[in-house]
Amino acid sequence: MNAPADPAASLAVSLATSKAPLTSADEMEARLRAIGATRYHSLHPFHRLLHGGQLNKGQVQAWALNRYFYQSTIPIKDAVVISRFRDRATRLEWRHRIEDHDGDIGTEGGIERWLKLTEGLGLDSKYVESTEGILPATRFAVEAYVHFVREKTPLEAIASSLTELFAPNLHEERISGMLKHYDFVNPDIMSYFSRRMEQAPRDANFALKYVRQNARNPEEREAVCNALIFKTNVLWVQLDALYHAYVDGHIPPGAFVPQDHKPRHKAN
Amino acid sequence: MNAPADPAASLAVSLATSKAPLTSADEMEARLRAIGATRYHSLHPFHRLLHGGQLNKGQVQAWALNRYFYQSTIPIKDAVVISRFRDRATRLEWRHRIEDHDGDIGTEGGIERWLKLTEGLGLDSKYVESTEGILPATRFAVEAYVHFVREKTPLEAIASSLTELFAPNLHEERISGMLKHYDFVNPDIMSYFSRRMEQAPRDANFALKYVRQNARNPEEREAVCNALIFKTNVLWVQLDALYHAYVDGHIPPGAFVPQDHKPRHKAN
Repeated sequence: MNAPADPAASLAVSLATSKAPLTSADEMEARLRAIGATRYHSLHPFHRLLHGGQLNKGQVQAWALNRYFYQSTIPIKDAVVISRFRDRATRLEWRHRIEDHDGDIGTEGGIERWLKLTEGLGLDSKYVESTEGILPATRFAVEAYVHFVREKTPLEAIASSLTELFAPNLHEERISGMLKHYDFVNPDIMSYFSRRMEQAPRDANFALKYVRQNARNPEEREAVCNALIFKTNVLWVQLDALYHAYVDGHIPPGAFVPQDHKPRHKAN
Repeated sequence: MNAPADPAASLAVSLATSKAPLTSADEMEARLRAIGATRYHSLHPFHRLLHGGQLNKGQVQAWALNRYFYQSTIPIKDAVVISRFRDRATRLEWRHRIEDHDGDIGTEGGIERWLKLTEGLGLDSKYVESTEGILPATRFAVEAYVHFVREKTPLEAIASSLTELFAPNLHEERISGMLKHYDFVNPDIMSYFSRRMEQAPRDANFALKYVRQNARNPEEREAVCNALIFKTNVLWVQLDALYHAYVDGHIPPGAFVPQDHKPRHKAN
């Protein structure tokens, strides 16, 4: 991480990387927010390009195609989270997340809204749903998330969802940036994000309250913070892979090649 | 994948990506070799730089540091493979792989040889063994390999090791290239690779014979080929991540920063 220039950012870095024992829920929350401020993928260069209108249509397609795999895996991840709890109240609290993504008979969910986006961008839904053109790094990162919630403690499984604390600002920036800059984007195909701006805060508030109450000693609070770092890595890796493949032009064997892609010079 | 210029390479691409049913072990082996010829990480631009002497010491350190996580996970992966077989003969055949990497009391194994490499490159072994500076993409890719051999069929678990068919040529090129080009490399710290040149062919021959005998229909032969493609992705993703972080200079938050690293211009 490069040293940031302004004092607030520098404070966030030292708070996020501090090794001091976390002796209270408030200290833990402060560190969680510092991790978000220094590691959330809102800071990633790919998002700067995406929201600033500096990508071509093929690059935006690649982003939406890969991110489909993430979106469509979330209800699977959430089903695993539910399966970790004997406690009925927590299962009840979590259950609506599956419905948010899967919808219901006759009711659209997040995955269908994402397919409206990929379709609006000119991608065939059958191809998107097959996930055969995604980057292997996308697959590995997303599957790591499912394995994490299966293998770590239930507390860490919940904590890994805390990136949602930081999502609304990012979604707001994305909606306005993409509508402004791309003539192939309209409000209808962006409905996934407008809808998530209502859902994410509710979900994040529950998860934050849960970890504040259930991480009862410095080790557990540390584990909560590490779960959030893990999750920021899951998101960051996906954008690194997109940047490398579709901005720097190193598309790996077998992955989606946009129609407007110009191969790099041989010597790269 | 870019279209290759010469006819042999073009034949390999069409063979590797063919969807024709594999009606015999020979057809399967031909496709496996074509997958190796088109997707093995010997073709990756990062290896061209590494073997051609075009990296600085910090970049070579980053490669060895990240690859340590792969190496040190292999005996864990192999223990999972062994655990998949009720059949004692296969377990016996596979067992020496753990020993190859872990060594024995008083006998050096592959992991210690890898630490000789990282130490020879000036990295502290405690830091290397902690794996705390590795790229998240390395972790996700390597862990995907362990999950693969746990979750797929025993046949696919064995098939995923078939990249070893292609390793000896790569190791030969690496040893001679690195000794020639880097004054910080000597034969002693390269002993991991010289030793693997004896071990890999024996292991690969067993695995190839196994899949030839045990993949008994087109679907199973296809699954064997897909397991090899999966594994080539595990290797490729690691080099993509190294290239992005240490050649293009986008080091992600928390990862190893070489002493000789020059931060990129802010605007990247």
